[in-house]
Amino acid sequence: MFRHTDHLQFDAKPEKPDPVFAHKLQELIGGAYGEMTVTMQYLFQGWNCRMPGKYKDLIMDVATEEIGHVEMLAVMVARLLEGAPATATTKAAMADPVIGAVIGGMDPQQAIVAGGGAMPVDSNGYPWNGKFIVASGNLLADFRANAAAEAQGRLQTARLYNMTDDPGVKHMLKFNLARDTLHQNMWLKAIEELQADGLEPTTVAPNALLDEEYAEHAQTIWHLSDGAAAAEGGWATGPQPDGEHEFTYLMDPEALGDLASAPPPDPKLYATYDGSMGEPKGPALGTETGPLGKIKDKLT
Amino acid sequence: MFRHTDHLQFDAKPEKPDPVFAHKLQELIGGAYGEMTVTMQYLFQGWNCRMPGKYKDLIMDVATEEIGHVEMLAVMVARLLEGAPATATTKAAMADPVIGAVIGGMDPQQAIVAGGGAMPVDSNGYPWNGKFIVASGNLLADFRANAAAEAQGRLQTARLYNMTDDPGVKHMLKFNLARDTLHQNMWLKAIEELQADGLEPTTVAPNALLDEEYAEHAQTIWHLSDGAAAAEGGWATGPQPDGEHEFTYLMDPEALGDLASAPPPDPKLYATYDGSMGEPKGPALGTETGPLGKIKDKLT
Amino acid sequence: MFRHTDHLQFDAKPEKPDPVFAHKLQELIGGAYGEMTVTMQYLFQGWNCRMPGKYKDLIMDVATEEIGHVEMLAVMVARLLEGAPATATTKAAMADPVIGAVIGGMDPQQAIVAGGGAMPVDSNGYPWNGKFIVASGNLLADFRANAAAEAQGRLQTARLYNMTDDPGVKHMLKFNLARDTLHQNMWLKAIEELQADGLEPTTVAPNALLDEEYAEHAQTIWHLSDGAAAAEGGWATGPQPDGEHEFTYLMDPEALGDLASAPPPDPKLYATYDGSMGEPKGPALGTETGPLGKIKDKLT
Amino acid sequence: MFRHTDHLQFDAKPEKPDPVFAHKLQELIGGAYGEMTVTMQYLFQGWNCRMPGKYKDLIMDVATEEIGHVEMLAVMVARLLEGAPATATTKAAMADPVIGAVIGGMDPQQAIVAGGGAMPVDSNGYPWNGKFIVASGNLLADFRANAAAEAQGRLQTARLYNMTDDPGVKHMLKFNLARDTLHQNMWLKAIEELQADGLEPTTVAPNALLDEEYAEHAQTIWHLSDGAAAAEGGWATGPQPDGEHEFTYLMDPEALGDLASAPPPDPKLYATYDGSMGEPKGPALGTETGPLGKIKDKLT
Amino acid sequence: MFRHTDHLQFDAKPEKPDPVFAHKLQELIGGAYGEMTVTMQYLFQGWNCRMPGKYKDLIMDVATEEIGHVEMLAVMVARLLEGAPATATTKAAMADPVIGAVIGGMDPQQAIVAGGGAMPVDSNGYPWNGKFIVASGNLLADFRANAAAEAQGRLQTARLYNMTDDPGVKHMLKFNLARDTLHQNMWLKAIEELQADGLEPTTVAPNALLDEEYAEHAQTIWHLSDGAAAAEGGWATGPQPDGEHEFTYLMDPEALGDLASAPPPDPKLYATYDGSMGEPKGPALGTETGPLGKIKDKLT
Amino acid sequence: MFRHTDHLQFDAKPEKPDPVFAHKLQELIGGAYGEMTVTMQYLFQGWNCRMPGKYKDLIMDVATEEIGHVEMLAVMVARLLEGAPATATTKAAMADPVIGAVIGGMDPQQAIVAGGGAMPVDSNGYPWNGKFIVASGNLLADFRANAAAEAQGRLQTARLYNMTDDPGVKHMLKFNLARDTLHQNMWLKAIEELQADGLEPTTVAPNALLDEEYAEHAQTIWHLSDGAAAAEGGWATGPQPDGEHEFTYLMDPEALGDLASAPPPDPKLYATYDGSMGEPKGPALGTETGPLGKIKDKLT
Repeated sequence: MFRHTDHLQFDAKPEKPDPVFAHKLQELIGGAYGEMTVTMQYLFQGWNCRMPGKYKDLIMDVATEEIGHVEMLAVMVARLLEGAPATATTKAAMADPVIGAVIGGMDPQQAIVAGGGAMPVDSNGYPWNGKFIVASGNLLADFRANAAAEAQGRLQTARLYNMTDDPGVKHMLKFNLARDTLHQNMWLKAIEELQADGLEPTTVAPNALLDEEYAEHAQTIWHLSDGAAAAEGGWATGPQPDGEHEFTYLMDPEALGDLASAPPPDPKLYATYDGSMGEPKGPALGTETGPLGKIKDKLT
Repeated sequence: MFRHTDHLQFDAKPEKPDPVFAHKLQELIGGAYGEMTVTMQYLFQGWNCRMPGKYKDLIMDVATEEIGHVEMLAVMVARLLEGAPATATTKAAMADPVIGAVIGGMDPQQAIVAGGGAMPVDSNGYPWNGKFIVASGNLLADFRANAAAEAQGRLQTARLYNMTDDPGVKHMLKFNLARDTLHQNMWLKAIEELQADGLEPTTVAPNALLDEEYAEHAQTIWHLSDGAAAAEGGWATGPQPDGEHEFTYLMDPEALGDLASAPPPDPKLYATYDGSMGEPKGPALGTETGPLGKIKDKLT
Repeated sequence: MFRHTDHLQFDAKPEKPDPVFAHKLQELIGGAYGEMTVTMQYLFQGWNCRMPGKYKDLIMDVATEEIGHVEMLAVMVARLLEGAPATATTKAAMADPVIGAVIGGMDPQQAIVAGGGAMPVDSNGYPWNGKFIVASGNLLADFRANAAAEAQGRLQTARLYNMTDDPGVKHMLKFNLARDTLHQNMWLKAIEELQADGLEPTTVAPNALLDEEYAEHAQTIWHLSDGAAAAEGGWATGPQPDGEHEFTYLMDPEALGDLASAPPPDPKLYATYDGSMGEPKGPALGTETGPLGKIKDKLT
Repeated sequence: MFRHTDHLQFDAKPEKPDPVFAHKLQELIGGAYGEMTVTMQYLFQGWNCRMPGKYKDLIMDVATEEIGHVEMLAVMVARLLEGAPATATTKAAMADPVIGAVIGGMDPQQAIVAGGGAMPVDSNGYPWNGKFIVASGNLLADFRANAAAEAQGRLQTARLYNMTDDPGVKHMLKFNLARDTLHQNMWLKAIEELQADGLEPTTVAPNALLDEEYAEHAQTIWHLSDGAAAAEGGWATGPQPDGEHEFTYLMDPEALGDLASAPPPDPKLYATYDGSMGEPKGPALGTETGPLGKIKDKLT
Repeated sequence: MFRHTDHLQFDAKPEKPDPVFAHKLQELIGGAYGEMTVTMQYLFQGWNCRMPGKYKDLIMDVATEEIGHVEMLAVMVARLLEGAPATATTKAAMADPVIGAVIGGMDPQQAIVAGGGAMPVDSNGYPWNGKFIVASGNLLADFRANAAAEAQGRLQTARLYNMTDDPGVKHMLKFNLARDTLHQNMWLKAIEELQADGLEPTTVAPNALLDEEYAEHAQTIWHLSDGAAAAEGGWATGPQPDGEHEFTYLMDPEALGDLASAPPPDPKLYATYDGSMGEPKGPALGTETGPLGKIKDKLT
Repeated sequence: MFRHTDHLQFDAKPEKPDPVFAHKLQELIGGAYGEMTVTMQYLFQGWNCRMPGKYKDLIMDVATEEIGHVEMLAVMVARLLEGAPATATTKAAMADPVIGAVIGGMDPQQAIVAGGGAMPVDSNGYPWNGKFIVASGNLLADFRANAAAEAQGRLQTARLYNMTDDPGVKHMLKFNLARDTLHQNMWLKAIEELQADGLEPTTVAPNALLDEEYAEHAQTIWHLSDGAAAAEGGWATGPQPDGEHEFTYLMDPEALGDLASAPPPDPKLYATYDGSMGEPKGPALGTETGPLGKIKDKLT
């Protein structure tokens, strides 16, 4: 269960309105790497965490913080939109290039749909959606995704930091940048701790099926693009980070598989077919070895 | 420019058809962490890479390989669908529980839309889309996303490996698992190399604005969820992985910001308003200090 | 800013696992009228509310509660999935019709993607997205949308209540149904109060432009479908709920507008055109009456 | 079955082209509360209505009208785009701030994709989709959604009315505003009539399970956000609109449920797990009490 | 403006309910090539048609018919769902394999969301959206898309025809198949007529820029996949259908372009960069030759 | 399996940067008819082609070429964005109308998300998705879709050709236009060849069920829109292109079907219902004629 305080986690007061920046700031709210993403990603990871204790508690701490980041940004957007020429006509925009520049750079839906507020969309008006998050239950895989999300988030924040000179906006973004720095380090540390605790001992997620996969194909980088400098990288020779494999670089790889052919089609599905692959197979569902197969056999 | 050979990179021959597994396998084709994602993610990263040389070449090598993985899986799906009871009627399914079980577990569009083949969708029929990828230009941020994507991809492959007992399918998945192992290690190694080369020297992406962000807020994990075990983790004290910050755990954090209030609205947008926040600001676009502001001043 | 307690708002303990019901329950999490929708709808409405005081506080109270409802449902889904035959093969499903029935009714992504947990998607696997919510700033319009959302939500909950006979699940749903009852009444009451407070005095949202719109067209229902019983309803005659208009039913309406014709096209856009609508207009951007038009006139 | 007349329901003749407004007007065509939404929402409600007679006829009357509203707006957009500088180059736009203002505010796809016409998308270019509508079969729930949709629609129309000063456009919008006024009143009246007819007697949709839900939880608003003014509203005490419940305001609510814990995971899905929740349950599908269970028991 | 009659264009009476087929039939309603697509595609093409007369009238005739096809299918779905075991519990499904087979093959949202009716989604529950249609203004391009859409539509209808043995359903589908046959022939005929009328004289859409494009590259098929049988096709030599070009098959094509390199990045966007491409260009917006450039020059 | 060369298929060197055009060019990358669409459409068609030989080889040749077209466009976008004022502030844009015009016309995500590169989205920022393609297995239906896609693609390319005056961009587009010309002719030729080879002998896809569909309904165009000029077209009389049907134009068509009524609802789904359609049917799943029905009968 959650509780809310009316105070923002940190300041979100622009010195002046700036509707063009309010448009861009939507990226940090509803973009693929915005605050809604980390909120929902951490919440679902936390709810799905299979172990009570420090990992689950950490995830829920940060998840709960991130809801407040969406809040800060939504309030900032509303303030940046104050006094925007949202209801100016085209004629006014054409007569005044300053209004023209502003109107061309605004998000029309912030006015028409949201009445001068933020929306759960990105800076191109595309809505946030549930496919932006991942919560797989495997903490190594998920924490790596978290560190990656915080990196993209900090990168976008840094770019936006350079697109404004409003001291109030920069004040808030300096806080956001710092939190993204912390959270990157934190998830990287948590990955180390998963390994130290023996929960996910190697760098390969999941730590499983390593004996069943074809080891020889876990060694070779295939040279398939004609720039050959990749053979000079540290990934071309030497031990892999998991300490279990060697890197090799396969300069002239050949395809190992058969021809990429599709089987003869079910005639009732009307694929174009000349018979060259032989007769289509009738529905053959496999060995019916269970009780039902036996009963059916008896009855027929 | 690309070239194609008709041979698959590796075998994709199931011992028997299995339309239910063909349905699930769509996740590895068109899911958020399927092969279409890594294909397009690496292609756009490669095309947008700002440095000729080993990094760009590596990205293009792997990107080119991944197109061939989509191919292997698409061919496997077509083969698994051979002889599926796709055109059986409900009546037949009700009369035979084996057909019933198969029909309930099939993807109806693989028959109706694709005529017995694969589609660029995931295992719930949701189409692959461009928001599944990231190509930011910052290689540290992107390689971390790549390592994360390969981890989720291998995890899903491993789960699917447990959902089949067809030796031919397992044969192919053992290859895929191995490639995902290699690619995880490879991107982790490439991150090390970016640091070794001095291109992205710290663990924090982007390596920028570290002096401008508020350092004190890059140290403290806020305790906002009442399970307190997070304070016992390695992230609660000690140095952060970037070697520049310390971790601290803030047990009783208080909100630092002002009240989350939205400003008075533009009356022409008809937000409900009682006047308590004062008069709405008229459009005030800022200091028009450029040539146009000056001319406008003169003319008016 | 938000805080979290590890206890659920209400119980979410199924008596037994039921993966088929876990699939259906996704509708209440990530469906268009699920708990993620009311969470985000109320949060954005609250953040964008232009008046401190009872309305804003009410919205934030309920918004904060709804995050906890997503939590309850997510935990319930994970528990319902315990021991699901997620990793059973098709062969096993074909041999045992009980497993077959379950596998046909499961969401494959709950296993493959989420590792046995909930996802931010609906019961067909379609992801929640930001277009599901509305937060317009006009409280009459938004509270009406809230009452409508709670009605659809309670309706879906009631349907799902009939699709299970697990006492633990029914226990939770009895709580959810009650909350949806309360919230419907609450938003209806809040609409009354907006009117009583004189903030939105009539039933028509927004309470504006009533003098400018064509009053005669706010009276007549047009008979455009040949079933004529609509003329017998209370909406065919008598006063309208806003107390300002009368209802009339227009039995033989005729189109009032001109022919639906598109103008001659820009030849550079290559629309097929025979010249019958005359010459295309060249770019004529309107009167350039502002400072720039004047300068341009001088310069040219 | 439908028929069409070439005349528009009402005039759609702008005095002058205005490509910037044509961009914004897309919101009323393909936006979440645009005319495509009410068209499809009412059509599906009508087709799914379970009672011949006045309700079904009313729904079909209005549904049929709304298709004509999409038509009016599509024609208006084509006319507003006449002579737009769609094929102007960037260089031209940079040389002439009037063209610059117009090009910045245009929808590029109206030219590139639609050749100077309307598209089924909103004012940010996001396509209309089927999730924008609701047709549940329950007329109380659906009519409330209809009244809500007409309110948002009229609100957006009113905002757009303020963004143009073209008399021809305003002429059309005065008609649209009036229809939205009528339709709000009409759906509110239809809700009254459903109650008067005894079909949906209370304000709570659906009118069902009121005896099974937990009555005590249908009374209390939980205080979860620290602004306390919500306790002063009419929803804090007194009878609820349904005449069956009282409102109370719970000032210090405590969570009623258990800890939000996920159960031990299926090991084949590779969730990170330390064993602290005990052994994972094997697939236990419930009591197999039907004929098959019995046969299976006999056979094994 | 549109009108509606309560009678369906053709019969839609199944002999018996069949909820599994109701699920599949959604493809013809809300799928990419379902009836909603042709409805909206033809409506937008008609509204955007630049010539009054036979083409526009034909488009509007067929568009209006297609709305009625959505209606037929929606009614059919509601009838097929009559008596579906939608509210059966998992326990019941597990006890009775017939119910199990049916429940596994049903669309859960048809019950939970639509109350036993159709929805604007496809057979995997993915919503219809505006990107499914095309209306470009160029009638040659659009009629070709129409013929293609009718072909896919008829193909899917034919596949579904084979998935039912209900005489009532087949009765309706025999009508639908016939309309799709007619519409394919009709659009092909309309293409011939566009050419005969001299409106779009060649087979290449648009009939423009044929003198400016590089003629030599309009002749050669590039051999980029190693199966060489493509050189045996009629497209390898001889005249092209437009009567203006010859076909040739380029057996050993070489890339004609430069290296695929991205330019030096803006340092404020933090792309990883080693300086090897030289200094990034500062913002250089081109020749400001218009009035503003001149004024700016004077002022500075 | 695929291979890559670092050289582009053709030149992609703009004379000057042009970020506004870079925004528009996204349509050719990630739009519904952009190069990603033809790439994926042809790849899936090729992988799903049921006949080794010339058709499959042709499809794979062209599919492989199209990946290289995405590459050319992505590189062109990166080059056009060089030196874009992406990090300029609103204040700077307001002070300089040239910057204002550019910023208003840019895609904000090309800077914030992609760091100055292309993305897999269209010119309104909407992501490419898997529903944009079709690969049905029926080559007549698919080749017709291919010819249609190439037509829309060439049309959009031609429009964009008119929106730039950069000689380097025009140089590339002249190549693209020519390829689209060739590919249109090529697919049209391939359709002729399918017929010549007897694989799909008539113009109607699929070439099936022509004897079962209602022939009389494959003849008549229904006059449902009041413009009557459609009766003057070549489609109103005479033989149809398939040589098997005649065209007729039905001037006064009447609906042939029954009333569009939905059946009585399942009471547990709470559709509003007055009983006028009789009692709802209980779950009646059809004749259980298979082995299971028989066993069940015995047991009960």
